[in-house]
This record gives sequence, structure tokens and C-alpha cells, in this order.
Amino acid sequence: MRILKRLRMNERDRGFVLWFTGLSGAGKTTLARLLEPRLRAAGLKVEVLDGDVVRTNLSKGLGFSREDRDTNIRRIGFVAHLLARNGVAVICSAISPYRATRDEVRALIGSEAFIEVFADCPLDVCATREGKVEMYAKARRGELKEFTGVSDPYEPPLTPEVWIRTDRETPVESAERIMAYLAERGFVPLDVAR
Amino acid sequence: MRILKRLRMNERDRGFVLWFTGLSGAGKTTLARLLEPRLRAAGLKVEVLDGDVVRTNLSKGLGFSREDRDTNIRRIGFVAHLLARNGVAVICSAISPYRATRDEVRALIGSEAFIEVFADCPLDVCATREGKVEMYAKARRGELKEFTGVSDPYEPPLTPEVWIRTDRETPVESAERIMAYLAERGFVPLDVAR
Repeated sequence: MRILKRLRMNERDRGFVLWFTGLSGAGKTTLARLLEPRLRAAGLKVEVLDGDVVRTNLSKGLGFSREDRDTNIRRIGFVAHLLARNGVAVICSAISPYRATRDEVRALIGSEAFIEVFADCPLDVCATREGKVEMYAKARRGELKEFTGVSDPYEPPLTPEVWIRTDRETPVESAERIMAYLAERGFVPLDVAR
Repeated sequence: MRILKRLRMNERDRGFVLWFTGLSGAGKTTLARLLEPRLRAAGLKVEVLDGDVVRTNLSKGLGFSREDRDTNIRRIGFVAHLLARNGVAVICSAISPYRATRDEVRALIGSEAFIEVFADCPLDVCATREGKVEMYAKARRGELKEFTGVSDPYEPPLTPEVWIRTDRETPVESAERIMAYLAERGFVPLDVAR
């Protein structure tokens, strides 16, 4: 029992970054919101760095050119790194369309703590999701420029740690798969992952 | 003994922000470097957010207008807040010349965790310090614009938690006074403050 408790303390001390990537509407924020209370319930310290929140607090004035997107992602990565190395479980939820930039963040944080989660969903499904219909319609009419997947590139991960098909499983099922992965890697105790 | 250990665990869990403010050359970075290992030795998790480092990672492209300085300070404050609420002892070392902006950061972080340390030193002394002579000379010749204390305002704190006169005491003496203050507030154990 004592050993078990000690193991759990170690688990709680190991910070990590769950880095969601995927199109707008693929389910990144939904999954982040589902996972946050589950990780807290497991005794972890948790911070969610949502792309939009970060744009307000760290990246006001940045646009959606490749350079500005990269700057935004690097800033999220920098803050996630600071938090994770202090034992926080960080959930990052930003489109992060460029593979090279995600790999840069992976290098900064270290592969032992960086968990790339690909929220994979066909564009046509994303475009029907709640709150996204109008945005995609505008993007398709050319009224929204530099829209990922429509007028701007999205480079899917080649070997993400977790690959979620959000059109084929429910958010709860996806969240459970992610929790199981975290338990397998020793980031959360096995019993809370179930 | 058990109670003592438990108290220490609580101390370690309480994050806080040591917010240095003062002119360039007043000794902010020197003090941050002295305090970092002492706080680590006390068992705390420590991060130093140095104004220049943050300008590279979070605020590239920002200049020294009031608006840009404020944006930079708010970003440092945002990151310090995230770290402190997860139990990290954060040392911020940036000129932060505007009182209202420092007070905004204080409001974000909360007075119970925000410790303003005024590194107070006459301008003429700052201008003689190592690595600062040429900068101040250039500023005085008008070759460096918007230089705090010369061609840009510095608003000293009215009621800082700790007031350090870096022209009248050594860095080690100042660091000891800050450690004593932290012990008094219960952020570090009394025995390590000595």
C-alpha cells in the first residue's frame, strides 16, 4: 500500500503535454474539456492551453499566415514546456497545421513528455459540426481567408502517439482511449483510467 | 516530525511570484540568479522569467512603446500566473516601469501570491554597473530611444512588499532579506531562510 502511494506520487510529479492537432471542428476542444476533469480526478495538476485563449493572452495581433501561426504554436509550446517540467499535465488544443512546427515543439518538450493526439475527422464532417457550419461556409465562399483545410494547408501527423477518428467514435470513447494510453505510459494510475 | 514534514509539503505546494521591478542595472537579474538556487535548495519548484528571455520566446517583434511594454508585461504575468497556481515559485525580472500594469498583474495573480520587490537604485549608480555603462551613455546621447529612466518614465512602486536599496547593500544581503520575507509569509521554511 505504501509503495503504491509512493508510485502515485511519482506519477503526479511527472508532467506531460497532450498536444491535440486537427482541423477546426475535429473535436480537439471537446476532448480537452472531457479530459480535464478526469485528469484532475486522478490527482494531477492540469492546465488547458486552448488555441483561442492563448491568442488573446499571448498572441494578440498575430494573424493566420504561416509565420504567425508558427509563432503562436511556438509560444504555446514554450508555456506548455514550462508547465510540464514543473509537473503539470498540459492539454494543448490548437489546430497546429504544420508538421515541422509540431516537431519543433516535440523537440523542445522532449519525446518522453510530448504526446501528439491526432483528432482525425474528414473535412466534410467537421464542416457540419455545431458552431462550425457558418465558418466553413464562409471559408468555402472565400469570405474567410487562410482557413485550414479549405484555403490553407493541414499536414496530418505521420506517427502520432494517439490517433483518434472522431467521426467513428464518440468523444467519451476517444477520451477513454487517451486515458488508457496515459495509464499505459504510467502518467495516470491504471485504476482511474478505467 | 511528521507534522513538520507535512507543513513543509504545504509550503512547497504554495506557488508565488517574486516580481522584481527597477531600472536597468538596478540588480534585478543578479538577485534572481542568487535566489533561484536558494529556493530550489528549499525544495521549491522554481522558474525564472527574465524580461529578455521572455521577449525572445513570447514577445518577439514588440518594441518599447508604452503599449508594447504593457503587452510584454501582461504576457509575463499570464505565464507567471499559470505557473504559480500550479505550485511553482516564479521569479520575474523585468523593468516593468508602469505602476498600473504591475497592479494589473497583481490583480491577476492575487495579492496572496504576488510579491513586488522594488530594486531601488539611483540612476547614476545603475549607469556605472557592469554591462550597463555603454547603454546608458548611448541613451543619454539620444542614440537609444525609449530608455527607461532617461527618455522613458519609470514609476516606482508606492508600497512594494520588499524594498531593496541595491546601492546600499550587497546582493547577498538583499537576497537574505527577501528569503527572510518569504519565510515570514510561510513560503519557505524558517530554517532555510537563514
